[in-house]
Amino acid sequence: MDYRITEQTGFSPKIGELMSMLDYTRAVTLANVEGLSTEELDYLADGHANSIGALLMHIAAIEFVHQVIAFENRDLTERELDQWLVPLELGDRARNEIRDQPLDYYLAELKKVRDHTLSLMENVDDSWLYEEGQYDNGVVYNKYFLWFHVVEDETSHRGQIRILKRMLEKQNQRK
Amino acid sequence: MDYRITEQTGFSPKIGELMSMLDYTRAVTLANVEGLSTEELDYLADGHANSIGALLMHIAAIEFVHQVIAFENRDLTERELDQWLVPLELGDRARNEIRDQPLDYYLAELKKVRDHTLSLMENVDDSWLYEEGQYDNGVVYNKYFLWFHVVEDETSHRGQIRILKRMLEKQNQRK
Repeated sequence: MDYRITEQTGFSPKIGELMSMLDYTRAVTLANVEGLSTEELDYLADGHANSIGALLMHIAAIEFVHQVIAFENRDLTERELDQWLVPLELGDRARNEIRDQPLDYYLAELKKVRDHTLSLMENVDDSWLYEEGQYDNGVVYNKYFLWFHVVEDETSHRGQIRILKRMLEKQNQRK
Repeated sequence: MDYRITEQTGFSPKIGELMSMLDYTRAVTLANVEGLSTEELDYLADGHANSIGALLMHIAAIEFVHQVIAFENRDLTERELDQWLVPLELGDRARNEIRDQPLDYYLAELKKVRDHTLSLMENVDDSWLYEEGQYDNGVVYNKYFLWFHVVEDETSHRGQIRILKRMLEKQNQRK
């Protein structure tokens, strides 16, 4: 793991630095879920929180959505929304529908989306980061922020994954 | 709240962008804890997790530690460690010792540390971000990474604060 935010071969300088942040964040997430069983990925703390599996799919979904917003300057189509709405919204449907899968399933989804991010990022330059857009509520963002938010959302959910793992361990000790 | 990563008046360009990230992250954290009572700040989910109050002190502590490492190129003194060890390590001592304080207490600690970060950041330029150092285990970091880690650590704990708040709400519903 590299503990430097630096330029990366194949990317414009600041895009490379952003990729350092995305890559580091992902490496820590993957280290946190390494070796989890399907049962552990499906664990619902308190009978209600999101499962670790659902949070991993959410991380992939958030990255996919930001590819569409930032690179295609549009919202999701109905068809894309059909595919991603459940992990995006989390909650009851995610608890029912995102389960019974091994870790490799989630890792493959994360990798597929990330590979596409890499190919998209290779083709933009630093100035692209400062292109602005507007959320539906009128608030202005730039694309640097959008991708900072991808990092931030993953990091926030990874913090949650850590709590869920500790609760899972505690529950297992009680058995 | 500004949803742009941009240069900031009074800071070197990339330092300003980093400050955008730090400021945005903090604004979201503060919005998440707004209005919490002392009892809520002291809540121990599962009788064991860290309290929200302890996590807020941890966020201040991590920022303080990174001021020392990144700006003074040294580790904490014994005296500094005495002051900050409990919120840094979290766990049992933090559960016992960080409590019975209102939200304003934590907000003041966060602000004091952040104000110092601002004054330190005003006096460095972009090239400072790429100065390298080594962790005790020999892994090389640069200062951009150190401050990215400050953002990351806060974000991860903020994700945990959100889970704790949901558990607290659920507990209150049961009463």
